[in-house]
Amino acid sequence: MSSSTHDTTQAVETAGGLSRRSLLRGAAAAGLGVAGATGLPGGAAAAAGGVPRSEIEPFYGPRQAGITTRQQSYGLFVAFDVTTTSRDALANLLRQWTSTAEALTRGEPAPARPTRVPGARGDSGIALELFPARLTFTFGFGPRLFDARFGLAEHKPAALDTLPGFPGDQLVAAHSGGDLLVQICADDQQILSHAFLQMRALTVGVAALRWSQQGFISPPTDGKAPRNLLGLHDGTSNPRPAKAEFGDLVWADDAATPSWLRGGTYLVFRKIRLALASWSLTSGAEQDRSVGRRLADGSPLSAAAGAPTRTKLDLAAVGADGRPLIDPAAHVRQMHAFPMFRRAYNYDYGFDSTRLHAGGDEHGDEPGHGGHEAYDAGLLFATFNADPRTQFIPAQQRIASNDLLGKFMTPTASGIYAVPPGLQPGQSLGRGLL
Amino acid sequence: MSSSTHDTTQAVETAGGLSRRSLLRGAAAAGLGVAGATGLPGGAAAAAGGVPRSEIEPFYGPRQAGITTRQQSYGLFVAFDVTTTSRDALANLLRQWTSTAEALTRGEPAPARPTRVPGARGDSGIALELFPARLTFTFGFGPRLFDARFGLAEHKPAALDTLPGFPGDQLVAAHSGGDLLVQICADDQQILSHAFLQMRALTVGVAALRWSQQGFISPPTDGKAPRNLLGLHDGTSNPRPAKAEFGDLVWADDAATPSWLRGGTYLVFRKIRLALASWSLTSGAEQDRSVGRRLADGSPLSAAAGAPTRTKLDLAAVGADGRPLIDPAAHVRQMHAFPMFRRAYNYDYGFDSTRLHAGGDEHGDEPGHGGHEAYDAGLLFATFNADPRTQFIPAQQRIASNDLLGKFMTPTASGIYAVPPGLQPGQSLGRGLL
Repeated sequence: MSSSTHDTTQAVETAGGLSRRSLLRGAAAAGLGVAGATGLPGGAAAAAGGVPRSEIEPFYGPRQAGITTRQQSYGLFVAFDVTTTSRDALANLLRQWTSTAEALTRGEPAPARPTRVPGARGDSGIALELFPARLTFTFGFGPRLFDARFGLAEHKPAALDTLPGFPGDQLVAAHSGGDLLVQICADDQQILSHAFLQMRALTVGVAALRWSQQGFISPPTDGKAPRNLLGLHDGTSNPRPAKAEFGDLVWADDAATPSWLRGGTYLVFRKIRLALASWSLTSGAEQDRSVGRRLADGSPLSAAAGAPTRTKLDLAAVGADGRPLIDPAAHVRQMHAFPMFRRAYNYDYGFDSTRLHAGGDEHGDEPGHGGHEAYDAGLLFATFNADPRTQFIPAQQRIASNDLLGKFMTPTASGIYAVPPGLQPGQSLGRGLL
Repeated sequence: MSSSTHDTTQAVETAGGLSRRSLLRGAAAAGLGVAGATGLPGGAAAAAGGVPRSEIEPFYGPRQAGITTRQQSYGLFVAFDVTTTSRDALANLLRQWTSTAEALTRGEPAPARPTRVPGARGDSGIALELFPARLTFTFGFGPRLFDARFGLAEHKPAALDTLPGFPGDQLVAAHSGGDLLVQICADDQQILSHAFLQMRALTVGVAALRWSQQGFISPPTDGKAPRNLLGLHDGTSNPRPAKAEFGDLVWADDAATPSWLRGGTYLVFRKIRLALASWSLTSGAEQDRSVGRRLADGSPLSAAAGAPTRTKLDLAAVGADGRPLIDPAAHVRQMHAFPMFRRAYNYDYGFDSTRLHAGGDEHGDEPGHGGHEAYDAGLLFATFNADPRTQFIPAQQRIASNDLLGKFMTPTASGIYAVPPGLQPGQSLGRGLL
């Protein structure tokens, strides 16, 4: 350890006497299983202050983290409603969120904060001795933040309107919308819980939790897109950040975009329950026809089995019987006209307690309604759009009306948020707005 | 790849045309990021059929897996009630569970099963191309399984009675008990979801899901016990499998134990909500006093700060003021007399929908009841006892009556299950019983 490491360590001593880095240094010095605990090969990763670089996603930059960031294994979406009527209190929350998020992504404890209890800890300690696991925070603002309360009406982006209803929606209002949205992602669920609880502690008296949803996704060993709970590769045709069209599809950059948002994007969030029981009672051939790809290997039905998943779709191809190889209502055909960048997570909540307490019965005694139907699992669909009016909205209209896969999906929550661009050191969330 | 690998691959071709191992072999051959995807150093892990040995916990053995197995990062506890009255149907379910669990732990798809839909897939595909991530299944039987239905009353172990009520319990009946318990653990949450859904698919017409709970735990980089959501090291004084006393504390082996259970154990499961908000409004000094250890480093208050967490407690030690260094009601003092082996997970569910729909308000508009109080996070406490009548039960009586930490805990679900010993190839769950 160099002397500069020592300096850094000093800087993170907190009022509660906790020092994350000194503990990490101790672990490194003792040769304890750092590599095993993090999944990193021992000795890789030159590190500042004991945290390997591969564990840190930069907080600062031209874009917010958590969008083009290689997807982490766990994601938490949280929405808050602002309860204060003070613009200053709101601005102060956004400043505190900024400095806390920045510290946590570097693997530091949360900065000290005012508390009404003398000697209370600023950081709960939940994540002490853990690496940050590529923690990112992505912040967004919901449409209602731009109402009369804070004088922001003139700054409201034209594309930031509550999404229209779609056929088949069964939205739960309490799980939808919200003034402030935080997407928190990391490769470790304990890191997520810690991050969320620290962010929430800052909201006392200023904002109130509206909803939270958490999910997971596992990158396959073969480099293809990950699979969702239907078993399907999800995001095979995702535009890639390195490609030229990515910017046009994702970043809100045109002259109509308010200056505070330019270089940002819009996040559309949908909680989609999947009908796993019905799906499992559908033949493999019918499953494949609904999608337009083979579940086994992800190859399009217009190409040979085993073809690479990224093989260009041949929507005109017909089989020996003269019928289209990709069904007219197959999901891939329906979505072909609406390219958008998706960064979804799977969720599996087991019981849906809402059905339980609404009189449902998940013990299976009520065939067709208990058991399978009460099981709440599916997709936390998230897409970052340059303009949802020409991307997510028409795509969802198509899925809801004429897509074979649509009948296995029930949207139960919905939200849209303007996601401002990234920050530089010294800047805070809400820049150009508050 | 050797020819024996080829043979194995043939054996796992399923009716749906899915072959996990051939896909894995393809990935290995292409040199795609296998190491990165699993967190394993590239080139470690000699493997059979493409699955690294370090990814597999043996299913067969004298004890069931998931007890002394090094704790995986994610755990799912699921309880079912048996709905059939046919002893044969129950025995058949246990046989199918056995063969499916065995296949999944090796990283194979679920074996083919009867289905009423021609061409339906036996395996959903959710875990294709993923490694098994040290997947384990641990099965237990609840007290009610030994009622009159299946003629098992004479086989009921004397220690297998529904737990008594304890002061402070706020048990939700629908989340407690159950005839059959499956603990599923793995280092990958997608693997858990897949495993659970495959096991559940086998229960149709035989058993119904009663409850499920899922949690996580992250091993710290310094080799100490992991931390719970209070920030406390949890399980510091856990007996270690290598020590002589472990067997006496964990395995039910005495003459009073029915033969089918001998060499097994009892699982006591408790869902414990933690009062995170109250805890965060408690000073660090008071937190430490409640536990009898320092949160920062886990050292006992009877030793110097920074002492190893496993330093022997000095319960008689007094400070300069003549008062005990470890408070008379400190958690470590109360628990000292009740050694037991714990294998707990943290849980963080965000909202408690039961409160939401019971008229609660988690938007914070109702101070003290919305917001903090509606947040459902805590501990999925699991302990494996040789005899819960002398271990968990008196310990919980102590916590509920005279433990400073107890006031931050609210048990909301409870269950006890007899966990039979392990199996050898050719044997099935329910051996010696059905």
